[in-house]
Amino acid sequence: MALRARALYDFNSENPGEVSVRENEILTLYSEQDIDGWFEGANSKGERGLFPASYVEILRNGAASTLNNNSCSTSGDTYPDSRYANIPSGGFDGSYKPPAKVENFSKPTSPGFTAFPQQQQQQQQQQTYQQPSQGSDDDWDDDWDDSSTVADEPGTVGGRYHDYEGNGPSTYRVSTSMSRGNAQQAKSSATVSRNLNRFSTFVKSGGEAFVLGEASGFVKDGDKICVVMGQYGPEWQENPYPFACTIDDPTKQTKFKGMKSYISYKLTPTHTQNQVNRRYKHFDWLYARLVEKFPVISVPHIPEKQATGRFEEDFISKRRKGLIWWMNHMTSHPVLARCDVFQHFLTCNSTDEKAWKQGKRKAEKDEMVGANFFLTISTPAAPLDFQEVESKIDGFKTFTKRMDDSALQLNATVNEFARKQISGFKKEYQKVGLSFKVLSQAFEMDQQAYSAGLNQAISFTGEAYESIGEYFAEQPSKDLDPIMDLLGLYQGHLANYPDIIHVQKGALTKVKESQKHVEEGKMDRAQAEGIDERCNIISCATLAEIQHFHQIRVRDFKAQMQHYLQQQITFFQKITGKLEEALQKYDNA
Amino acid sequence: MALRARALYDFNSENPGEVSVRENEILTLYSEQDIDGWFEGANSKGERGLFPASYVEILRNGAASTLNNNSCSTSGDTYPDSRYANIPSGGFDGSYKPPAKVENFSKPTSPGFTAFPQQQQQQQQQQTYQQPSQGSDDDWDDDWDDSSTVADEPGTVGGRYHDYEGNGPSTYRVSTSMSRGNAQQAKSSATVSRNLNRFSTFVKSGGEAFVLGEASGFVKDGDKICVVMGQYGPEWQENPYPFACTIDDPTKQTKFKGMKSYISYKLTPTHTQNQVNRRYKHFDWLYARLVEKFPVISVPHIPEKQATGRFEEDFISKRRKGLIWWMNHMTSHPVLARCDVFQHFLTCNSTDEKAWKQGKRKAEKDEMVGANFFLTISTPAAPLDFQEVESKIDGFKTFTKRMDDSALQLNATVNEFARKQISGFKKEYQKVGLSFKVLSQAFEMDQQAYSAGLNQAISFTGEAYESIGEYFAEQPSKDLDPIMDLLGLYQGHLANYPDIIHVQKGALTKVKESQKHVEEGKMDRAQAEGIDERCNIISCATLAEIQHFHQIRVRDFKAQMQHYLQQQITFFQKITGKLEEALQKYDNA
Repeated sequence: MALRARALYDFNSENPGEVSVRENEILTLYSEQDIDGWFEGANSKGERGLFPASYVEILRNGAASTLNNNSCSTSGDTYPDSRYANIPSGGFDGSYKPPAKVENFSKPTSPGFTAFPQQQQQQQQQQTYQQPSQGSDDDWDDDWDDSSTVADEPGTVGGRYHDYEGNGPSTYRVSTSMSRGNAQQAKSSATVSRNLNRFSTFVKSGGEAFVLGEASGFVKDGDKICVVMGQYGPEWQENPYPFACTIDDPTKQTKFKGMKSYISYKLTPTHTQNQVNRRYKHFDWLYARLVEKFPVISVPHIPEKQATGRFEEDFISKRRKGLIWWMNHMTSHPVLARCDVFQHFLTCNSTDEKAWKQGKRKAEKDEMVGANFFLTISTPAAPLDFQEVESKIDGFKTFTKRMDDSALQLNATVNEFARKQISGFKKEYQKVGLSFKVLSQAFEMDQQAYSAGLNQAISFTGEAYESIGEYFAEQPSKDLDPIMDLLGLYQGHLANYPDIIHVQKGALTKVKESQKHVEEGKMDRAQAEGIDERCNIISCATLAEIQHFHQIRVRDFKAQMQHYLQQQITFFQKITGKLEEALQKYDNA
Repeated sequence: MALRARALYDFNSENPGEVSVRENEILTLYSEQDIDGWFEGANSKGERGLFPASYVEILRNGAASTLNNNSCSTSGDTYPDSRYANIPSGGFDGSYKPPAKVENFSKPTSPGFTAFPQQQQQQQQQQTYQQPSQGSDDDWDDDWDDSSTVADEPGTVGGRYHDYEGNGPSTYRVSTSMSRGNAQQAKSSATVSRNLNRFSTFVKSGGEAFVLGEASGFVKDGDKICVVMGQYGPEWQENPYPFACTIDDPTKQTKFKGMKSYISYKLTPTHTQNQVNRRYKHFDWLYARLVEKFPVISVPHIPEKQATGRFEEDFISKRRKGLIWWMNHMTSHPVLARCDVFQHFLTCNSTDEKAWKQGKRKAEKDEMVGANFFLTISTPAAPLDFQEVESKIDGFKTFTKRMDDSALQLNATVNEFARKQISGFKKEYQKVGLSFKVLSQAFEMDQQAYSAGLNQAISFTGEAYESIGEYFAEQPSKDLDPIMDLLGLYQGHLANYPDIIHVQKGALTKVKESQKHVEEGKMDRAQAEGIDERCNIISCATLAEIQHFHQIRVRDFKAQMQHYLQQQITFFQKITGKLEEALQKYDNA
């Protein structure tokens, strides 16, 4: 049972991360320990955040179980706030029972409270649609995970997990270079100051924990991720077995004798050539795993959820296109493409429910997430020049800001342009067409035999303009929509980067702090060197990710601009052809 | 001196043709004789029309000169109301001195009160611009007619006129077939009822007078106009010497040491190859002559006047285009192209002021206008079937209504379409262009050497879309403006037709009346046959004019639609070319 408190006064949230509470409201605390005078918790509406510790009194009858049931990771390390640092999912959800309204995060088997603000925001946005309607996108009370959580069967899952680990080809234990026990880690934490903002991405992503040498875990060979020095700086080692994956034929499926409906997408990865069927919720679940696992990798956002019209063709087609884009970015990414959970998603036989569940639970219990992810990274031999890194990162930050602004502007312009073509342009051309037709109809009343040809030609011209109006209305789906899809995907990436940059910046700050501490004699050089080394790992990963971003960006925008222009050329040629056809009608008029 | 009267009561005009008068207002009467209880005259503001005879008292002290000074035509016939039946111009203006406000028709040398309501309306509209500004379009106080009127020098002009007539190759006297004196005519008028609405086009055009056999004049060989039976019914005999006339290089001219400026158009008729310079006022003067002369011919309207910006390039160019269209319709018309006044206008040496004045006065003294115009028409031997004529005219009336409606709609649509292209379409394409450029600028900050090609290509694409925006803005002047010019010209024709139809209908009504009178024994058969004959002449002329209208309509709309489509094709090809150029930039990006 969760720790509870009662609000003594009204408190109105004024900053992001804070949550408003009303006097006498019963609140859920996530820890008895305050942070700089603030408690973390949830109010009676289920809204989570910080509120002033002095504004509440803890209700002692619920104080017995202050720690999460699942907060013990297999590595044996315990972090009181690990649930905010990308712990394996299920950790939070198993213990938290919101007392009253549950809309906001009541999914019993939700992948948990994830680290990234934008994803959190997205989830909350999505959850506003989570009415208990049949066949909802978030229909998680399905057979395939029917309310079973990791906590419900610790033995089984734990066993399986260990079995799996034991069966791995070369499982070895890695810890941070400092590799000390909890007590020592606590000490080091005391020396290099910890960030007091628990909502800081640096903290939540595990970046801080890693830099401070608090991460440790077994790294399998298959989990190893290499950053190599490329022509333009650090880059992810290329996927030696590149593959793609098609997404075809979204079909409506029903189960429970038609009581539940959903859309199933047929996925065919090129490296297996085995088709699997996946639902949006699978994509959603996978996305959550990836975000949790990779702190400095920009996981492409999946298409947005939608509450109504989920079975309408337009929506299905649009979502499919969004998923194709998403899949393209997944398979193009050297790290994401190869990771276990994605491979499980791509290859697990859709009809083998047991295999699916097993893979699902394994992914949810994955140890190498967040802080531990960095343990899996191997870097080029020569460490980076942090000053150069900082300059590059700053440049990239400026770039992302500019790109985000311009993408926003282009998106708005293109959206408006599409709207204008569908409405205004179409209307104008069709009005011209209609007016020509009306003229030809008037001319038909002229009682003159010799004008019949002209009248028909004008009538045809009118129809041609009506067709051209249609062409304008049809065109955006061929050229502007793909541009908007592309921009949407990149806007998702751009939204990821502040957090990625934040993690790297956080690491760099720790380096600077440790240097200062060494100078002041408060920290031994070896410890500072460890921080340097780990900051180097984070920096390599960050720069590799940035490099990857630029490469796919150039690839995608080039391809998309070409596609756009080709479509536009075809479009204007089609108009020209129609007009030429109309012009010919006058030859014998 | 004009006959005057004083209003006894207020009278508010309620119908077209009526004029409001205020109690005690001094009015000018055109005749002491009332028409069905109405007087014709002008109020103190110079507004002309009908008012109830019982509302006024005639001021006897001014009753001595009830007849117009100039109402005596050279034929010797006097018609008390001849000034409303297309008498030679100058007749009214010489005698009428409006006492107070003079804006509406105060031009001392105005071509006179013309017959057609639409022209009258146009003149009034035009005259709203007639402030005494220097260099106005209506700058009639110029040297070339410096206030001299026909009335001022009756001997001279009359003499010249007679001289001219005497010099004609085969001048012969023609009267209506009834060929009776005034007394007889008055009698016949008493038998076949006269139209009491003196503002009726039938009356004003001279149609009624002609049908009733009241027209007579000398018809020269050169004035003879033949209607022949063509494939589609009566048509004007083709001009055996067709010609065209170019209008080039409108230039700004000054005179009086730069105190007066005007635009001079260079006209070069193909049949003389001699360039003459004409000003708008010459066109305007010519137009008035033509309207006055030809009751059932649709004289193309000249481009509208404009008070301000007369020397702006746009306006000059637009007016020139309008005049070219007008000229094309003039030279295309078998009757208009050949008429003396037009030939004088086209061929008189611009520097020979004496010759110009002579021709001008001759035209203004032309006897063969209005009712007499019909005397000049020779018809096919077989008379028309009036029932068929009526059906044709009715069909044409329906047609003109429909064509007018559709032309109005097309004009509005095209105008709006042009406006949209110049503003909205341009803006949309340029916004897209700008957004691409902004994106390329953002991309240029990516610090990646390998993306330079893409960035340049996107930047070029942005510029291409900005150019396309310009193309859209430039296009209407190439394709939509000519359509609007065409429609404008035809709307002018369509506005002429109700009057033309009215004249023919009026003649047909007289035929029916005369038949009834014959049946009732009130009219002898010979008189009725005369009316039939004259109605046949009017009908032949009307149908010939309608036929001509259809022929040039088909010719013009075919040519213009082809031109429009060709321009549109070129336009879209230009866009396509620009986009292809942009697409190529990506080849090595």
